[in-house]
Amino acid sequence: MEDLKASPANSSPLTPLGFLERAATVYGDCPSVVYNNTTYKWAETHRRCLQVASSIASLGIKRGDVVSVVAPNIPAMYELHFAVPMSGAILSNINTRLDARTVSVLLRHSESKLVFVDHLFRSLVLEALSLLPPNAQRPLLVLIADHHGGDGQDSSSAVDQFCSTYETLIEKGDPEFRWDPPSSEWDPISLNYTSGTTSAPKGVVHCHRGVFIIIVNSLIDWAVQERPVFLWTLPMFHANGWSYPWAMAAVGGTNICLRRFDGPTVFSLIREHGVTHMCGAPVVLIMLTSSPQNEPLPNPVQILTAGAPPPAAVLFRIESLGFVVSHGYGLTETAGLVVSCAWKPHWNRLPASERARLKARQGVRAIGLTEVDVVNAESGASVKRDGSTLGEVVMRGGSLMLGYLKDPEETSKCMKENGWFYTGDVGVMHPDGYLEIKDRSKDVIISGGENLSSVEVESVLYTHPAVNEAVVVARPDEFWGETPCAFVSLRNDGSTPNPTDKEIMEFCRAKLPHFMVPKTVVFKDELPKSSVGKILKFVLREIATAMGSSSRVGRS
Amino acid sequence: MEDLKASPANSSPLTPLGFLERAATVYGDCPSVVYNNTTYKWAETHRRCLQVASSIASLGIKRGDVVSVVAPNIPAMYELHFAVPMSGAILSNINTRLDARTVSVLLRHSESKLVFVDHLFRSLVLEALSLLPPNAQRPLLVLIADHHGGDGQDSSSAVDQFCSTYETLIEKGDPEFRWDPPSSEWDPISLNYTSGTTSAPKGVVHCHRGVFIIIVNSLIDWAVQERPVFLWTLPMFHANGWSYPWAMAAVGGTNICLRRFDGPTVFSLIREHGVTHMCGAPVVLIMLTSSPQNEPLPNPVQILTAGAPPPAAVLFRIESLGFVVSHGYGLTETAGLVVSCAWKPHWNRLPASERARLKARQGVRAIGLTEVDVVNAESGASVKRDGSTLGEVVMRGGSLMLGYLKDPEETSKCMKENGWFYTGDVGVMHPDGYLEIKDRSKDVIISGGENLSSVEVESVLYTHPAVNEAVVVARPDEFWGETPCAFVSLRNDGSTPNPTDKEIMEFCRAKLPHFMVPKTVVFKDELPKSSVGKILKFVLREIATAMGSSSRVGRS
Repeated sequence: MEDLKASPANSSPLTPLGFLERAATVYGDCPSVVYNNTTYKWAETHRRCLQVASSIASLGIKRGDVVSVVAPNIPAMYELHFAVPMSGAILSNINTRLDARTVSVLLRHSESKLVFVDHLFRSLVLEALSLLPPNAQRPLLVLIADHHGGDGQDSSSAVDQFCSTYETLIEKGDPEFRWDPPSSEWDPISLNYTSGTTSAPKGVVHCHRGVFIIIVNSLIDWAVQERPVFLWTLPMFHANGWSYPWAMAAVGGTNICLRRFDGPTVFSLIREHGVTHMCGAPVVLIMLTSSPQNEPLPNPVQILTAGAPPPAAVLFRIESLGFVVSHGYGLTETAGLVVSCAWKPHWNRLPASERARLKARQGVRAIGLTEVDVVNAESGASVKRDGSTLGEVVMRGGSLMLGYLKDPEETSKCMKENGWFYTGDVGVMHPDGYLEIKDRSKDVIISGGENLSSVEVESVLYTHPAVNEAVVVARPDEFWGETPCAFVSLRNDGSTPNPTDKEIMEFCRAKLPHFMVPKTVVFKDELPKSSVGKILKFVLREIATAMGSSSRVGRS
Repeated sequence: MEDLKASPANSSPLTPLGFLERAATVYGDCPSVVYNNTTYKWAETHRRCLQVASSIASLGIKRGDVVSVVAPNIPAMYELHFAVPMSGAILSNINTRLDARTVSVLLRHSESKLVFVDHLFRSLVLEALSLLPPNAQRPLLVLIADHHGGDGQDSSSAVDQFCSTYETLIEKGDPEFRWDPPSSEWDPISLNYTSGTTSAPKGVVHCHRGVFIIIVNSLIDWAVQERPVFLWTLPMFHANGWSYPWAMAAVGGTNICLRRFDGPTVFSLIREHGVTHMCGAPVVLIMLTSSPQNEPLPNPVQILTAGAPPPAAVLFRIESLGFVVSHGYGLTETAGLVVSCAWKPHWNRLPASERARLKARQGVRAIGLTEVDVVNAESGASVKRDGSTLGEVVMRGGSLMLGYLKDPEETSKCMKENGWFYTGDVGVMHPDGYLEIKDRSKDVIISGGENLSSVEVESVLYTHPAVNEAVVVARPDEFWGETPCAFVSLRNDGSTPNPTDKEIMEFCRAKLPHFMVPKTVVFKDELPKSSVGKILKFVLREIATAMGSSSRVGRS
């Protein structure tokens, strides 16, 4: 047996790039990318990607160079997921909602050699470049104009800063371009900067193998069949759209692109294109349920949500419209969702509130993840499977990142020598083996020596009919160490009278142990959000810290 | 970028073994294996496999030892796909239809340390062991008695030759057994001896990685969703049931086991258990269409066929019953089906005969295969994509075997240094990129310098209403070199008068070029078949060779 090993025929690198040529063969006549009045077919998307890839190579971009993209969910954004790595370069999607200073930091950190810039973000990128130090290498720029009836204008006035437009790259490109597969499946394919709800952006690097694994993992776990119609409500720049751009080529899906969206747009696109699948944070679900056009859907639409557990009330409302909600869990570091709340048939017989409670759990590993556990962060031992002992969520598996770019210290902090990746998320393991995230480790509040999960308090606040959004953070306390401090935005839609802070506390007291009830409630018109719509807990934590102690203990 | 590499957290070996524990968590209460009056649930199957694995280890079986199984599709057979590799050993399923001499050769070649023997194959295995040379090491034997209401008798009389029964291993086993994952994903997981339609059996060794890849490949390609009900009409000993035993754990399927089957049994099980999926060679399709119970099904059943293209008439008949036929292609060396006739939506609008012609093509690579091509065997260049130029089918990808056990010569003959695996199958590439197998390379007939595909002639013979089965081989010819010689079995069901050999030739002449028309037609009551039901072309080729020249050329 010992002489039987990997050989050239069986060890060709795992990579998603081959999916595209296959899609062109099998689904050549079927729609691949739809955007406003434009519909591409898979044969065209394949050809366009080959042309862009050949042009990228012609621009002098070399294997292993970083190529950045600043664009919303438009066809070019989709194509670049294939074209950039087919050219041998590494794809780095940049969040379009960042400010110029941050974009400048990222471009410099990644040493990006080429940036594809959607025309609406031209000034953002130009400003970012102007902020680069004088000695820094400046990337080439390609302008993505909008020929698709989008709502922006193609202004050729400032084209001189750009070496080309995107469509010119396609015209000049070689449709017979022969791309080289990665020399190893461990070669980088993408670089994503984490959204930075907690700290400075970190550059997450994924390899071809990892992306292949997350794709097959995700298709099987979400049971995506052939030729889905996928509505791009999730930004592709966000963790590469959980790797679904590549996955759609594997199953010949139709990618419905859109520049920005609101409830009416989503409902109208669902009806127009027969959307079957979409993804989004719970905020997308909230938006859909509060849309004026939220009539029941003609056909069920699968919606996959992650980032935070969907609140029960939202879940109930959106499912009554005909959406089928799946709840998963992943990080930028896992390339997509690696844990999901795999649904048990007999749960369908439970009352709605119980179903919602179960669906709020992150769940079990999908088949591409080797292991997931909740451990005591100090001892590394698994916590009790009792649904209440908090521990850190750890995992190992083939879709975990290679590491953070130029940051061996942060990399080794989370990818430990014991073989586990430490997520920084705090959760519990239920007796049935389902995992539930309770908090980011830094969001745990320690009050009177008790660890309490801010998320748990938030979920109670969300059940209050007047509450729109709620966040709970630690406020320093002379006596308790910390106490829970709630920041709340109200619906203000006239349906319910606005409660006072005391009423909110009373409401919580009826549903929570005493030590978990917020000692402070602050009303805000809107809660501060990150560029991807996550509530910025650290901003609120700073506010709460600045408030000082919540109780004054008289000295004896 | 260069410092970002594989690390313990992201490089845990790809293996299917973890699917079982996950299935126990998610589908613990759902049926896993059904056999006669017994139904196991996933939690039980998980526990039983742990117990068997621990007992195998207790018997002194070491990592890398070969453990053989001689059993039909019964629950133990399913469980051993997990239990054997969880113990660290390599699973070697042995075809139960082999004779004792061949079984003896395989046991000796594999150096099997332990054999699980279904009680009905006890005498086969005991006889095989008696044929081992006196100095050969003798494996331990475990008897699988039948406690499930099967049709065999548990005879404890000869138990003294066995170290244990299967159920005793389970009783004594440790349900908390902690199995070690493979030390590398390239570690062997299985050893399969090829069915030997062509030559001496060869031991195909697959690794954990390869099996993981074929499973995700197969689930996505056949679009198998969660909790299918899988009827085991395909023998698990045949290429590990195309790796579907492992795949069923990934999706929490129900495995309907059965010891042997005929049409009425299959139809009755489909109705009883709500079967959704089954696999089988075209001979299974033929059997179903000629079954007296072949009434239309209450729900569509997916049936995946491979091994030979399904004849048009059979396809038409079985689809009219409610089966949905998918056609794929694989070899024991690929661990499962790696090429499939991915169906294009607009083909459904074509007439039935055209649909059948398209479905007879093997198709395109599934997403787990990196590349497939048809090449000139000498130059290695791709043949023209014209649907008629014959070449050898070559491929590369992650599910290809490690090689043949103890046979570096045969291994290097097919897994060449140029990075391709040579299948030995001869095919064409159609202009649309779909592959069609025309023959095994040794089945090509060369008549008057023209290569002609025996399969093509056979497919015409199958359209004759009186023909049941047909095979075409080369008969030596003084003038032409070789001519096509047809062996035909007739339906004999009274529906059509039996044709003469001249009438068969006339029939072919109307539909084929002259040089492809059989010069000889031999009627047989039944065609010789291999132990897995494949027609033994080499037997018929020997007969045809023994006939001598088909034409006598007078000497001038």
